Amino acid sequence: MTKSFYPPIRTLMGPGPSDVSPRVLAAMGRPTIGHLDPLFVELMDEIKQLLQYALKTKNELTLPISAPGSAGMEAAFANLVSPGDTVIVCQNGVFGGRMKENVERCGANPVMIQDSWGKPVDPEKVSEAFDSHPEASVLAFVHSETSTGARSDAKTLCQIAFEHGAFSIVDAVTTLGGIELDTDNWKADVVYSGSQKCLSCVPGLSPITFSKRAAERINNRTSKSHSWFLDMQLIMSYWGEGKKRAYHHTAPVNALYGLHESLLILKEEGLETSFSRHRTNHEALVAGLEAMGLEMAVDQDFRLPQLNSVYIPNGIDDGKTRNELLNDFNLEIGAGLGELAGKTWRIGLMGHSSTRRNVITCLASLEAVMAKQGYDLVPGAAIDAAKSVLDA
Amino acid sequence: MTKSFYPPIRTLMGPGPSDVSPRVLAAMGRPTIGHLDPLFVELMDEIKQLLQYALKTKNELTLPISAPGSAGMEAAFANLVSPGDTVIVCQNGVFGGRMKENVERCGANPVMIQDSWGKPVDPEKVSEAFDSHPEASVLAFVHSETSTGARSDAKTLCQIAFEHGAFSIVDAVTTLGGIELDTDNWKADVVYSGSQKCLSCVPGLSPITFSKRAAERINNRTSKSHSWFLDMQLIMSYWGEGKKRAYHHTAPVNALYGLHESLLILKEEGLETSFSRHRTNHEALVAGLEAMGLEMAVDQDFRLPQLNSVYIPNGIDDGKTRNELLNDFNLEIGAGLGELAGKTWRIGLMGHSSTRRNVITCLASLEAVMAKQGYDLVPGAAIDAAKSVLDA
Repeated sequence: MTKSFYPPIRTLMGPGPSDVSPRVLAAMGRPTIGHLDPLFVELMDEIKQLLQYALKTKNELTLPISAPGSAGMEAAFANLVSPGDTVIVCQNGVFGGRMKENVERCGANPVMIQDSWGKPVDPEKVSEAFDSHPEASVLAFVHSETSTGARSDAKTLCQIAFEHGAFSIVDAVTTLGGIELDTDNWKADVVYSGSQKCLSCVPGLSPITFSKRAAERINNRTSKSHSWFLDMQLIMSYWGEGKKRAYHHTAPVNALYGLHESLLILKEEGLETSFSRHRTNHEALVAGLEAMGLEMAVDQDFRLPQLNSVYIPNGIDDGKTRNELLNDFNLEIGAGLGELAGKTWRIGLMGHSSTRRNVITCLASLEAVMAKQGYDLVPGAAIDAAKSVLDA
Repeated sequence: MTKSFYPPIRTLMGPGPSDVSPRVLAAMGRPTIGHLDPLFVELMDEIKQLLQYALKTKNELTLPISAPGSAGMEAAFANLVSPGDTVIVCQNGVFGGRMKENVERCGANPVMIQDSWGKPVDPEKVSEAFDSHPEASVLAFVHSETSTGARSDAKTLCQIAFEHGAFSIVDAVTTLGGIELDTDNWKADVVYSGSQKCLSCVPGLSPITFSKRAAERINNRTSKSHSWFLDMQLIMSYWGEGKKRAYHHTAPVNALYGLHESLLILKEEGLETSFSRHRTNHEALVAGLEAMGLEMAVDQDFRLPQLNSVYIPNGIDDGKTRNELLNDFNLEIGAGLGELAGKTWRIGLMGHSSTRRNVITCLASLEAVMAKQGYDLVPGAAIDAAKSVLDA
């Protein structure tokens, strides 16, 4: 007989979802009201303003897509790209590959720029691609590659697109709330994110913002977007100005309660304080991992503080280690993805998961599990190293 | 200063969302776990089985799409329809029009069959359309038109499609859990629904099921679906068989807790008992409305018990009435949609909203608000009429 589901309380230190704040969980459980209720429309306006704060933008067209981050990615491409367009796509991990899929499904032509997994996108190659493909109308890249933990130089990349008269699409799924994201100053045209990373909301929503010129391009499209559900021309009429909202789809009301609360928490803490917390806990984790003799997979200069890729040492069993962490410690860390599957772990310190307690818990648990597999370490050394950063 | 959002407790008697059970709200607020957590994979399996029960199907490819009902509709078309296909689309309300949009965005050719808003789809016209368009590979229609409250004869329509060697796509957004839905016996090929109608879960998910031959057609597609996010070839690898699930997108974990609980509630009550409850409360509401001198917009033979369209009487102000119901009684009823905007109200008795208490509350509130506008009625007559049905 099927019964109600009572999940265990995990510590979520994978690539997302991250630990969801009790405040957000409480918001999720509040009574549902109608998606056209005047009070809900007011909530939508507040969410929009809070997203503008988080994304550092004045863009009018700023809202959460009613589906996970992959739908946010598709919304970016399905609206900005038309059949026959040329799109320069940077790939340095899993999500650049997904961008290519999206370009192709728009009936457009992707020009791929490849960089090694774990390295940032090389701006030189992007400039060269624009020289070889002056017809390119869009540049797309991943700011924070969730599959590798590498950060690319979004400001420079957006600038190159801008100088070539092209639009930029920035995947900021793992960025938002964890590290600097400066939509307007970067002149980014479309930036999308996810709710379940550094915002520490539940998964299922993807904040997105379109610059004024991107919105104009969308409004002036001659061909319709291939997606009805993600068509911004239609969605604008629900999320637009004024009190009167036209029904497009039924918004995920309770998930939006949660997003509102998570954005409020971010604003209360302040972006800079949040970034600094992510940085400190990251540095502590790295100090601890290195004290255990582990090697980080990404160079220090472009490591994401919120997603730490670390090589699995010789002799240590990937699956066994993660299973034991999950079953014995209720601790989830992430497996490597794509090219890095079986080679790395991805340890998330995102949003509400980026705490002193989690850094120490993770190091202690990993020490215990690896010691059982005969890994040579000095018990407690990792925690001491982490604490020396945390207490500095 | 923006604050946490505390919604009022509404009584939701519009076209959805319906009142969400406290059990579902409690489930929504439980701690988030990872979308690849073994315990979450078990939950997914249970959801699949519960959906198979609710949809009366053995279809292997049965799952909730991670987005609202409009995405479920798009998933049906984007997977089953290829560029150049001919699709017969029945329109007798708003949602048939949306189906046409979906067909066009697949690069396919819609053949439209029009019936009056508030009437069911005419099977004769469907047969004729197949005769004139023997190349048609898909028939699409709305079983329960949420914009009008009319039910079409899904069994007959699916049979016609089957006899013409075509696939059927059935919009059952407002159907599921409220009235008979017999996927396998009807030989329906794709049936999609929404979480926020008669399941009384929060909005944001769309259950969908594909027959074996529909799944084969999808697996044998030569052109890729235009949507990456909704591509069933990819989604299957996450929702498929076995313990090993390939990451496609991050599932909306907490919304799925809620869906699981709502499906459990439906199974505990039993489909037939749920249908009978919907029928009784509907008959009571209609008796009450007619005792007030109001006229139903849909003929008795094909009225949806879960969505009651009633004409707004002369001299009564649509907006004012709905606003007063909302502000003074915390009661939401639905406005007319499309052609019926300003002409009808849509009173939902869906799922957890379909209760004796709601029938009586709605009638009493409507009496009070309409009497204030000078409408001639015998106070209490509507409630007496409803009670005579409820207590029979």
